[in-house]
Amino acid sequence: MITEIRNATIVTVDAHDTVIEGGTVIIDHGVITEVLPAGVAPSAPTDQVVDARGGIVMPGLVNAHAHLAMTLFRGYADDRDLQGFLDRLFPVEERVLSEDTVRVGARLAFAESLRAGCTSALDMFWWPDASIDEAQQAGFRLQAGPIFIGFPGPDHTPFAGRIAKAERTGPHRWLFAHGTYTMTPDELGKVGELARRTGARFHIHASENDSEVSDVRARYGRTPIELLDDHGLLGPTTVLAHAVVLSDDEVARLGETRTAVAHCPLSNMKLASGVCRVPDLLAAGATVGLGTDGCASSNDLDLFIGMRMAALLHKGVRKDATLLPAPTVLRMATIGSAQALGIDHLVGSIEVGKRADLVRLDPDSPSLTPSFDAASTVVYAASRADVLDVWVDGKQVVDNRSLTTIDLPATLALVREIIARF
Amino acid sequence: MITEIRNATIVTVDAHDTVIEGGTVIIDHGVITEVLPAGVAPSAPTDQVVDARGGIVMPGLVNAHAHLAMTLFRGYADDRDLQGFLDRLFPVEERVLSEDTVRVGARLAFAESLRAGCTSALDMFWWPDASIDEAQQAGFRLQAGPIFIGFPGPDHTPFAGRIAKAERTGPHRWLFAHGTYTMTPDELGKVGELARRTGARFHIHASENDSEVSDVRARYGRTPIELLDDHGLLGPTTVLAHAVVLSDDEVARLGETRTAVAHCPLSNMKLASGVCRVPDLLAAGATVGLGTDGCASSNDLDLFIGMRMAALLHKGVRKDATLLPAPTVLRMATIGSAQALGIDHLVGSIEVGKRADLVRLDPDSPSLTPSFDAASTVVYAASRADVLDVWVDGKQVVDNRSLTTIDLPATLALVREIIARF
Repeated sequence: MITEIRNATIVTVDAHDTVIEGGTVIIDHGVITEVLPAGVAPSAPTDQVVDARGGIVMPGLVNAHAHLAMTLFRGYADDRDLQGFLDRLFPVEERVLSEDTVRVGARLAFAESLRAGCTSALDMFWWPDASIDEAQQAGFRLQAGPIFIGFPGPDHTPFAGRIAKAERTGPHRWLFAHGTYTMTPDELGKVGELARRTGARFHIHASENDSEVSDVRARYGRTPIELLDDHGLLGPTTVLAHAVVLSDDEVARLGETRTAVAHCPLSNMKLASGVCRVPDLLAAGATVGLGTDGCASSNDLDLFIGMRMAALLHKGVRKDATLLPAPTVLRMATIGSAQALGIDHLVGSIEVGKRADLVRLDPDSPSLTPSFDAASTVVYAASRADVLDVWVDGKQVVDNRSLTTIDLPATLALVREIIARF
Repeated sequence: MITEIRNATIVTVDAHDTVIEGGTVIIDHGVITEVLPAGVAPSAPTDQVVDARGGIVMPGLVNAHAHLAMTLFRGYADDRDLQGFLDRLFPVEERVLSEDTVRVGARLAFAESLRAGCTSALDMFWWPDASIDEAQQAGFRLQAGPIFIGFPGPDHTPFAGRIAKAERTGPHRWLFAHGTYTMTPDELGKVGELARRTGARFHIHASENDSEVSDVRARYGRTPIELLDDHGLLGPTTVLAHAVVLSDDEVARLGETRTAVAHCPLSNMKLASGVCRVPDLLAAGATVGLGTDGCASSNDLDLFIGMRMAALLHKGVRKDATLLPAPTVLRMATIGSAQALGIDHLVGSIEVGKRADLVRLDPDSPSLTPSFDAASTVVYAASRADVLDVWVDGKQVVDNRSLTTIDLPATLALVREIIARF
């Protein structure tokens, strides 16, 4: 099956942030085989033609940090301080979470994400195999793996059992440590050793807020970043979620080690964690992707709002309107996140040879008209309201705002059954 | 015509922030005549029934500060400092703006606003009669009036001519002074005198950023707020746009005079103006509404994103997750803005006797499921994507996401013709 998307404003997010007006994208069996300027016909006949009518076609957004099945707890603990948040959330997580409910929560997350133009995510959660299976059915490009924490968790598995299971079921593409404040340095070292030995990538919450950093420093005399560095866990295959509280030295160290940071501005604001030093991290050479966090922290999986917040927050707080211009933020939510996830050879831009994870926006949206600069339009005006069509791996998963792979009413009904147990 | 909206989660935004699950709203010739709990039937037969299927029905959002026809310049001057922004914008405004183009820009703004659940706005712009006429055709509840500034402006009218015209065509419900930095104190006094004499409400940009305040202080030895106070222009019929740079004394003074502030967080962040002291203003007793500003400043007219930004920004910057909880922010964008505009006796909440400006959200939106608290859902999860139906004055202006009063394709075509002249 060869699909032709024609008459598009193609926001490629290639190395030069090229935008092609009136262009054509050819998808052949899931791969982008041609990206053509206006007036150039495809090199071979195509099976299906989509007329973008001048509208924007952009790479699928990539969520660099999420706990997807926490859609079940969307808005369950709002407007509280951290302790109030945890006090409300932990008991119900313990009571409700299971492989079955994670499956439903993940399905809801894929429905929400795909409709909002997000085609891929790094998902740290319990029962990852359930989410991985659901992702395959939904046609969502999921990155997930075993999670490690210093207490049993909702799946009632002690740390040693988690290591043993990961050894038995591995090698895994990802190993997730929850945080330096929820496991001992010895446990952290064990996860790091397993990651190194098996070639796994590594994801962890780090330096999300002041209390985490002072807590870890009080216990171990080191900050979370220093502990990770001690264990050789900084580097290009590591993704740190949040990284809000950083010293100048730590910013430099993340840059020189090419560590990736998943910037989650909506979560950081809602939980009053503070403002990540994104401009400094980018200047230092760190990879920065954009994440949503889980829906109990910030309440949706919408990377369009995430881009808006990232683009505006740093300007306002530093009083510099030129900081993080639209193309930089768009890169963060696409190729930046893809680099963080180690999938930038596959997705994150519209270039020949990449897999076709694409989003088409509504050319008739009043909010996107006029458009003088396509990246500006995407970052400062577009919303999930404007997402018309979405392809993942060349398969159309959203068609004129409707999901093709997920039974949404049935999923919503299952979610409502689960929350009736709260 | 009597319309019944049944089976709704009614977010009333009344004095107690009452939410009615499974409720019914009756609209009789534009007026809300009944707001009924679950299980209570309307007192008389109805002509039309809308089944909300459990979804949220909320008051139409009210935009407390906008330059609506600036939709024409959406994204025309992004990621620049203030001088770069003005240098790019002013020449094209001068070249393009006319009564005819304002008409088209306003029409686009009404299309965008209504589709995003915003039913009313305070609009400061040139050729207000054109926008007022367009609003009547679109069924949008517009508050507008003559604008005063110390230089001729795109309509080439000197200050004295503006006063003379306002006298001749008045009395007007609103008089708009552009700012204390764009007119002399003498001119400001003349507008104030006219407002007092004719009973007009008063709207002005004030203390938007540091440079404005230091500029005005250098010229007149007074801050913008002090100048307004000197001229008797603080009070409950005055709306200050932005009010970002305020001393403690000024916050107290705005509170004790019950002056209204139009908080425009997206614009303030994008233009790097800083963070308005909203929690302090509310504590002091000022009225705070929510505005978007014009689309050259922040690029859309979406008060859902405005609510999200208002709810998150202050938490993050002050590191207090309990600040501006969802109900407070929802009030700001509805009854708060309505109070600022002096139309809170008409709209801003769902209560018997008020005009029916209502918004119905999609009950099947994955992003709104689950919903544990309706105000949280509106502020932290909803977006313009979820707006299904909108009524203004009881007339349905958006029906299943389609505009009933505006020819959108024709409007978009006119906009594209205009920007071809840029």
